[in-house]
Amino acid sequence: MREEDRAEIRNLPLFRDMASPAFDALMHAAYDQVFPAQLELIRQGEGANFLHVVLEGAVELYARWREHETTMAVVQPVATFILAACMRDAPYLMSARTLQRSRIVLIPAVDVRAAFARDPGFAMAAVQELSEGYRSLVRHAKNLKLRNARERLGAYLLQKSQEAGEAKGFVLPQEKRLLASYLGMTPESLSRAFKALKAHGVHIDGMRVIITDPAALRALAQPDSLLDAVLNIP
Amino acid sequence: MREEDRAEIRNLPLFRDMASPAFDALMHAAYDQVFPAQLELIRQGEGANFLHVVLEGAVELYARWREHETTMAVVQPVATFILAACMRDAPYLMSARTLQRSRIVLIPAVDVRAAFARDPGFAMAAVQELSEGYRSLVRHAKNLKLRNARERLGAYLLQKSQEAGEAKGFVLPQEKRLLASYLGMTPESLSRAFKALKAHGVHIDGMRVIITDPAALRALAQPDSLLDAVLNIP
Repeated sequence: MREEDRAEIRNLPLFRDMASPAFDALMHAAYDQVFPAQLELIRQGEGANFLHVVLEGAVELYARWREHETTMAVVQPVATFILAACMRDAPYLMSARTLQRSRIVLIPAVDVRAAFARDPGFAMAAVQELSEGYRSLVRHAKNLKLRNARERLGAYLLQKSQEAGEAKGFVLPQEKRLLASYLGMTPESLSRAFKALKAHGVHIDGMRVIITDPAALRALAQPDSLLDAVLNIP
Repeated sequence: MREEDRAEIRNLPLFRDMASPAFDALMHAAYDQVFPAQLELIRQGEGANFLHVVLEGAVELYARWREHETTMAVVQPVATFILAACMRDAPYLMSARTLQRSRIVLIPAVDVRAAFARDPGFAMAAVQELSEGYRSLVRHAKNLKLRNARERLGAYLLQKSQEAGEAKGFVLPQEKRLLASYLGMTPESLSRAFKALKAHGVHIDGMRVIITDPAALRALAQPDSLLDAVLNIP
């Protein structure tokens, strides 16, 4: 692995507080690999053999039941997935595939568990990461259950606008099929939701979004840190 | 606190592997309290001051946004909530209220975090608990996104039947309003789902469910350990 990759991984909250020998041991067993777009990295139901670290590209976590499929999250660099299955030594509940050409580091799950038992800094960081993962899923489930399709889309667009520094115009970061799936709707209901948002201050042109009336959109979506924020630590 | 309560708490997976002095210190700061039915124990958005242990009764975890409310889980004895907010020292994302008269032990969150830093057995157990909490929410979100109302209800009934030892007849453990909310539907759509399930081997009479054709119900709901199981450790 390249020295700058090691440094980037070392800098993640999950690894930052590890003692150096423990981190070195973990990295010793790890290796990076480049995967083409649309490659299935892991399949739900398989045993969790590796903690994955996305260094470049983007990875979709998705779930499948019968002929249905749904996007659960998109992981962007630099970030890990899926710690919970690794810690429990249990089958993955989600599948993962690359959305684009991606470089990914694979860390054997058995070494992750060993590091947890040995290194208190890593143990504390792992608990923080799992807690935040849990909380982010609570938000996702609340959002699905409490808001209708239009409100969910409105809240998502406000969040993207905020991430872009309160920009009124921005380009959707993911294709609409994936956005619809993440927000728990069909592509058709996403189109209807975009149309309905015209009356609430949103103009859409292909992948380009312009928020023409932020106050109207906020009145509809009513952003809430208990529903929307990625991190919500006071 | 009564000696038998201490023993019950000590026996939970979360506390089982703690060293005795650490467990004693944690219990020293804890106290139990009896709450009447329908009492709000915690409110989403408030700081997480206590880890709760339900000793008797039942507690509903729910979430609210504007005038909407949804049931996220029902916690039954003996079990804890909400560890993730305590570990992160972050606001609760869910509210909690007693469904019936309940006896609950309150453990100060600051002591929980201290025990985590000091006791490796507790640290490992906390990570296992958080991982399983995360995985259980993944299942909840997958269920909401991948199955329609009828399929969700069918899978829930199969699970209850299984918990009752493959019993064909059983009584719904919670009122229908709460069940509907947990499954992400209105009471009206729950009624419609029950009616639709007649054609798939389910007879309902008030709170009493009889599965007249388990094979037909299984064909519809297609139970899946990656969606349904409470625990899914190989």
